[in-house]
Amino acid sequence: MSEKITRVAFQGEHGAYSEEAVIEHFGETVEPVPCESFDAVFQSVQEGNCDYGMIPIENSLTGSIHRNYDLLLQFPLSVVGEQYLRISHCLIGVPGTSLERIKKVISHPQALAQCQQFLASLQGIATEPVYDTAGSVKMVKDTGSAEIAAIASQRAAQIYEMAILAKGIEDNPANFTRFQVIAREPVSPSDDAKTSIVFSLNNRPGELYRAMSVFALRNIDLTKIESRPLIGKPWEYFFYIDFVGSIEDPVTQRALANLEEFSTFMRVLGSYPRHRPQPKIESG
Amino acid sequence: MSEKITRVAFQGEHGAYSEEAVIEHFGETVEPVPCESFDAVFQSVQEGNCDYGMIPIENSLTGSIHRNYDLLLQFPLSVVGEQYLRISHCLIGVPGTSLERIKKVISHPQALAQCQQFLASLQGIATEPVYDTAGSVKMVKDTGSAEIAAIASQRAAQIYEMAILAKGIEDNPANFTRFQVIAREPVSPSDDAKTSIVFSLNNRPGELYRAMSVFALRNIDLTKIESRPLIGKPWEYFFYIDFVGSIEDPVTQRALANLEEFSTFMRVLGSYPRHRPQPKIESG
Repeated sequence: MSEKITRVAFQGEHGAYSEEAVIEHFGETVEPVPCESFDAVFQSVQEGNCDYGMIPIENSLTGSIHRNYDLLLQFPLSVVGEQYLRISHCLIGVPGTSLERIKKVISHPQALAQCQQFLASLQGIATEPVYDTAGSVKMVKDTGSAEIAAIASQRAAQIYEMAILAKGIEDNPANFTRFQVIAREPVSPSDDAKTSIVFSLNNRPGELYRAMSVFALRNIDLTKIESRPLIGKPWEYFFYIDFVGSIEDPVTQRALANLEEFSTFMRVLGSYPRHRPQPKIESG
Repeated sequence: MSEKITRVAFQGEHGAYSEEAVIEHFGETVEPVPCESFDAVFQSVQEGNCDYGMIPIENSLTGSIHRNYDLLLQFPLSVVGEQYLRISHCLIGVPGTSLERIKKVISHPQALAQCQQFLASLQGIATEPVYDTAGSVKMVKDTGSAEIAAIASQRAAQIYEMAILAKGIEDNPANFTRFQVIAREPVSPSDDAKTSIVFSLNNRPGELYRAMSVFALRNIDLTKIESRPLIGKPWEYFFYIDFVGSIEDPVTQRALANLEEFSTFMRVLGSYPRHRPQPKIESG
């Protein structure tokens, strides 16, 4: 009998950037479990099929992944960690091919868009959008063609035993994604932590300002604010706030108690150790 | 020679909800000009091919249309009006068919999702996503089949001379879209107005709170806040704020001058007459 291996759900195929975030966060010993959709990632954690889920929450170029904000509210799960990942694209082909032989490049539309300048520099190359970055590598492998290349991560090239024809081909190197780790039970980080909450307010002037005062007056640093529609109440919102501080901290507790005095709904999504990457921007 | 007719660009085919917003806002005498993409709407106004553009900015069920926020910043155009529209879906078939004969329903995936309960009540009906609501009516018309229906607006049924098989079939009647009207030159509404601005801040704790204080301390009512990534500066943001008040109002002017004292960038997107619909929710 083998030891129980930690299973972590992610959206996409093996070799996806989300899988890279799983490995960065948990190390090589966990089992990343591919899921078809973000919904399936949440489902899989809730049902106990996986211990954790790794969900992208925001990209530095394209913004928030709003579907995951909605799912955080819909599922009774907790945020227990965060992970930043530098997104760096490679051009990937079958072993033995070369950059000069490529006539068509396939990938997720967002990856193609992020490598526009590089692709233009190749001249006369056709592009074709497909559903997934890692999936595009799999597709090129299946065709066996030396004239088609995919755009995906270095890790995807390794997994599918394919050749890297060019590295760091993204136009803008300031391309990072922030992920959150979800689990069935919350954690209680004691020291350097962040907390994510969601709340709604009375539809009166000045209420959001009042909610932000709760944090500002206690010198609590808000790192992100996002709003999503409150279904059934047009032009009312759920506000999502991330701030620096642990739920164990009395100052945090007083701030949240203060917010609850006038919010119409408030839920702590989770308190988790803060990930502090050095967002070093390497040149391609 | 005919008089010059006002041309208003919108995204989608004739019969799209955006075209309905054009007619609601400008009346029947203008010429709505269909465009393939939101980008094309902005382009068309900038180049002078159209006098105005009508862009959806937020839906009460699905949230902000983030692409249009980004385009408002990229193009040197002004917001000169707003329009609320109740989104109410119809099931539409070829003349002579009936609800009982329908075996397949096609529409934009969001429209199909918004009519899920109605579709389930029909039993044994297949659904198929297509690119556009109005476009789906056109497609049903082209097939001539009495067994296929589309989901779109009442207006789309009229335009393509098709039959309405069921009305108000959306699960949630609290379905509204807010549109903004864009033009090359700003307007200066003097009385009941709203103003839209975009700004960025130093990446320091408390700066957003400070920005909101500028309005709160002057009793200016913020109606919407949205954030979008500042490209090239990971985890810094452009903030979009809509508030009640005209740019002609000295209080507004002082608030914006105050904001400019510490913002790193600030642009007035436009000041425009406030649209005050009675958001009456009729039952299907």
